[in-house]
Amino acid sequence: MSYKLFIPGPIAVSEKTYKAMTTPIVGHRSKDFTAIIDNVEPRMQKLFYTQDPVYLSTSSSWGVMEGAVRNVCNKGVLNVGNGSFSDKWYDVSKRCGKNAGFLSFEWGKPIDPEALEKELSTNKYDSVTLIHNETSTGTMSNLQEVMAVVRKFEDVISIVDTVSSFSALPIKKDELGIDIMITGSQKALACPPGLSFISASKRAHDRAEKTEGRGYYFDLIEFRKNMEKSMTPSTPVIPLINALRSKLDDIDAEGLEARYARHALNNKIVREWGYGHGFKLFPEEKYGSVSLNCFENTLDVDLPALLAELKERFHMVFDGGYGKLKGKTFRISNMGDETPDTMRELLNNIDAILPQYIK
Amino acid sequence: MSYKLFIPGPIAVSEKTYKAMTTPIVGHRSKDFTAIIDNVEPRMQKLFYTQDPVYLSTSSSWGVMEGAVRNVCNKGVLNVGNGSFSDKWYDVSKRCGKNAGFLSFEWGKPIDPEALEKELSTNKYDSVTLIHNETSTGTMSNLQEVMAVVRKFEDVISIVDTVSSFSALPIKKDELGIDIMITGSQKALACPPGLSFISASKRAHDRAEKTEGRGYYFDLIEFRKNMEKSMTPSTPVIPLINALRSKLDDIDAEGLEARYARHALNNKIVREWGYGHGFKLFPEEKYGSVSLNCFENTLDVDLPALLAELKERFHMVFDGGYGKLKGKTFRISNMGDETPDTMRELLNNIDAILPQYIK
Repeated sequence: MSYKLFIPGPIAVSEKTYKAMTTPIVGHRSKDFTAIIDNVEPRMQKLFYTQDPVYLSTSSSWGVMEGAVRNVCNKGVLNVGNGSFSDKWYDVSKRCGKNAGFLSFEWGKPIDPEALEKELSTNKYDSVTLIHNETSTGTMSNLQEVMAVVRKFEDVISIVDTVSSFSALPIKKDELGIDIMITGSQKALACPPGLSFISASKRAHDRAEKTEGRGYYFDLIEFRKNMEKSMTPSTPVIPLINALRSKLDDIDAEGLEARYARHALNNKIVREWGYGHGFKLFPEEKYGSVSLNCFENTLDVDLPALLAELKERFHMVFDGGYGKLKGKTFRISNMGDETPDTMRELLNNIDAILPQYIK
Repeated sequence: MSYKLFIPGPIAVSEKTYKAMTTPIVGHRSKDFTAIIDNVEPRMQKLFYTQDPVYLSTSSSWGVMEGAVRNVCNKGVLNVGNGSFSDKWYDVSKRCGKNAGFLSFEWGKPIDPEALEKELSTNKYDSVTLIHNETSTGTMSNLQEVMAVVRKFEDVISIVDTVSSFSALPIKKDELGIDIMITGSQKALACPPGLSFISASKRAHDRAEKTEGRGYYFDLIEFRKNMEKSMTPSTPVIPLINALRSKLDDIDAEGLEARYARHALNNKIVREWGYGHGFKLFPEEKYGSVSLNCFENTLDVDLPALLAELKERFHMVFDGGYGKLKGKTFRISNMGDETPDTMRELLNNIDAILPQYIK
């Protein structure tokens, strides 16, 4: 049975994108391949709002999230956690043998710039990890405020995960002074999973050059050396790069402002639907994500039963809560190719069966 | 322009496999996904000839090649090199901050078991990396003899790259006593690149548990924990797993013995064609690979010009030599779905234009 995904990644992929994946494979050391990179690279830089190179990594985002820490942490890395994924980054940093500190906020709360400034002022850190949009709780921190603090610390390399917010709203890497910015293919870019992106500043590369044990597969210097020839260090996941190329055509055709406005409108439609039913947003409204809505299950809906019928009868799926919030929250993604009509179709289908599942 | 790849990876992908990639994406924490893993996992174990789990890594093979070293090397790793890829593994080990030793053989020569035994006897190593089939030179070492030596060293964890030989001939992991065996999707499995496989013994997992700094993304323990639930640690490259599933159906339909015999026959056809023209095999014949032939350019063919016309006129591509052997050798792959007819078609096309490019 095939069904449409409204979970916060992987998300629904269009027929056009699937078809792009079947473009015949070329040799990755050939001019046919470098032509593909030359096509996508400047357009990815535009989406990242950066002059820095954007590297294509054949991995899920966790690969480059780990890799970034291995590249730039010498003294200590501060992992800022306010949800499942950002909390986990602390664990991953320790597993890399790094001297890691943890600044923790309650799940659903944004990163507090003042607390961050205080912790960075201890002078224990030369790097910091931040998640812009905590997918587990639908909480979007204020990057302007957060980066204003981080920029005060000259020796601190910032690593910002924008996995589930990238291209749903503008995130201006260079303007914000983000050193390393990371995203993945399977969120708002609406490509299948398996390709991730890491853009790094000169400062980040300079640090990497002085960092021992950073390895090869996620090495920034190796990425740079290859990107100078429009190549990747290892054999890349070519079908997904072809999918990306097709998706960038879609984005160009729609225009960035229209794309951002569409995501904002889709998000608003879902949020108002939730409020209309009496569901409370899990994060404070001001910090509610623009790419997904995470609602508290305030009506005590039997989520597994509702999700089963929605899938069986309407071939649609949303998410019944992540990790420790399973059953207590639910999440509806509005990333990617969705329109007000497709979002309303989902919500109408939920409405058709919701009453019977309110306990 | 689309053309057929006879380079030693990535190789030609069938229409059926491309189509399998367009199977709609499912959530990677859903039963729909675990059902896919439950389908492919036992069949991959059969191809690996192992009772150990076979982990699916969203990366090219270099990811798990680096990851394996990070997992099991505490004391020192011996990197055995006899070509571009095996030589590079030594560099990668050092970049991981590991205490690495290098046992080097001339390119085109196989791994010498006696020299290996002597080096391992120094007691400096707790792990060893070996490439079964050096793709850069088409040289296939004798794994029976090599592993007979390695097995004598109880504390040494063996890591064997079978990237370009896997499934072209039987490589019996458990019988050979290989601890960690690695391969990729884009060679004889004839899937697109972007998915790799790593199967590890209990000994290897036990070692990993005691190894610091192994990280998360390629951590064997994390792979095992997730595979127990038929899942992967991070969002996997689902389209390629669907492609793999389709390819395993093909392999089942053909039968393993027929598959191995077909690869051997295709290989022989190319080799005899080369000999018929007076080309010398680059490695000693006994160690010539069964999945590709690497010939010396003994006739001084203008390879770039010949390759350009072959591609333009016949839409076919083989390889004009790797790294320092560029122009001095050429390589023709017979991996994957090829048949005697398709191999002869390539060779006939080469014959049609070869005479004019002999200098």
